[in-house]
Amino acid sequence: MKIMCQLLGMNCNVPTDIVFSFTGFVTRGGRTDVHADGWGIAFFEGAGVRHFVDYEAAVASPIADLIKRYPIKSKNVIAHIRKATQGRIALENCHPFMRELWGRYWVFAHNGDLKDFAPPLNDAFHCVGNTDSEWAFCYLLQELRRRFGDTPPDLSALTAALRELCGVIAAHGTFNMMLSDGAALFAHCSTDLHYIVRQYPFATAKLSDEDLSVDFSEVTTPNDKVAIIVTSPLTTNETWNRFASGELKVFIDGAPVV
Amino acid sequence: MKIMCQLLGMNCNVPTDIVFSFTGFVTRGGRTDVHADGWGIAFFEGAGVRHFVDYEAAVASPIADLIKRYPIKSKNVIAHIRKATQGRIALENCHPFMRELWGRYWVFAHNGDLKDFAPPLNDAFHCVGNTDSEWAFCYLLQELRRRFGDTPPDLSALTAALRELCGVIAAHGTFNMMLSDGAALFAHCSTDLHYIVRQYPFATAKLSDEDLSVDFSEVTTPNDKVAIIVTSPLTTNETWNRFASGELKVFIDGAPVV
Repeated sequence: MKIMCQLLGMNCNVPTDIVFSFTGFVTRGGRTDVHADGWGIAFFEGAGVRHFVDYEAAVASPIADLIKRYPIKSKNVIAHIRKATQGRIALENCHPFMRELWGRYWVFAHNGDLKDFAPPLNDAFHCVGNTDSEWAFCYLLQELRRRFGDTPPDLSALTAALRELCGVIAAHGTFNMMLSDGAALFAHCSTDLHYIVRQYPFATAKLSDEDLSVDFSEVTTPNDKVAIIVTSPLTTNETWNRFASGELKVFIDGAPVV
Repeated sequence: MKIMCQLLGMNCNVPTDIVFSFTGFVTRGGRTDVHADGWGIAFFEGAGVRHFVDYEAAVASPIADLIKRYPIKSKNVIAHIRKATQGRIALENCHPFMRELWGRYWVFAHNGDLKDFAPPLNDAFHCVGNTDSEWAFCYLLQELRRRFGDTPPDLSALTAALRELCGVIAAHGTFNMMLSDGAALFAHCSTDLHYIVRQYPFATAKLSDEDLSVDFSEVTTPNDKVAIIVTSPLTTNETWNRFASGELKVFIDGAPVV
């Protein structure tokens, strides 16, 4: 059993629902684990985002219940269940956080704890709540805007900047995080992050937190590719890849970019 | 029957649910009216916001159905049902829109149509979608930041600035809008906006769009004060106040500020 928050991300080449993984994940929000101080999930759909946050435990939330039953299809999803370490239990402190930069929405969630991390936020992004996580998110966007101005960089320049900035932040503590602009999903690991790519030939997966299996071959086409990134593996019969400490991976179209 | 979008806002002195008004309002989203191109609603809770948008007709949306059944309590709510006039039917074009300025979330929805309105957006706020409405919202926030820098003004300076900026925008067409930072709800009328203040002694109200009544005296305390602002009156047995054309009203703690 892990202390602190847990993260779940999905990146796909075609819009896919996250009902199976989310069902296992939210069970950790107050039933099989201690993360009962709120939860949230954001789904990109085109350039738009559906953003749900709640300070109730995920297992008790009517909105989480709806999301388990309502298959919202998305190519980029970030979800979070929270065990408060900094910041009171309040809606403004629930992840994922969302801001706009360069005419795109950015969604961010963090697992970990940062010490003595308080760089000045003196440009376009300020914290609404009082968590180290939101501060780190605002800092990331501020520094991206400072480096690239009003012109978004290409993926490789963006990735290089994020890799460097994540290193700066991670020097202050544990910084497992997920960030997406709807095109790519960036995941940085300090301590705990795992991923899997599901693709043809699809097999059956069995959740570790619920008595639930799904045969993905029945709900996919041979071209589908789905990357799931999570704090600790969600299934018992698949092989999950562990991130190295300090590693930033970029997922596009359902697979890590080499 | 009105063409274009419809707006619904609520401003209260204690957190109140909007189930009754929302139920009548969403009925216009595809059943008693033509606003079937999406809908959205945002609830402030403390400094945080629950934000729901959907490009399905409100009458067919599982999320709208949940909100009709799940009494989320809030002091400031803005809702919108959309009849697309500019911008395709897509999630990124659904109102209300949300941005952060001065460490507060701002929520905005618009009813109307602006012509030849394209001021440069060259600061911290850019459109994600392609509506005149989001452009007007980004322009408002950009101009507020330009005038007041990183220091939020007091209410009277903020109101004066918004009144002037709304006049600038409304010169380009119809600009019925609602804007909230969680403390106040600002409503500007070009053509159609009505409000009512419900307070002690509370009476029974009857929806005009659904066969539904509620006796507010049973669900309130004598100190409660609730302002409802809407494009066209929601009830048949109450007296609604019509906004003058060009008028900006500010609602705080359930009543218009004189």
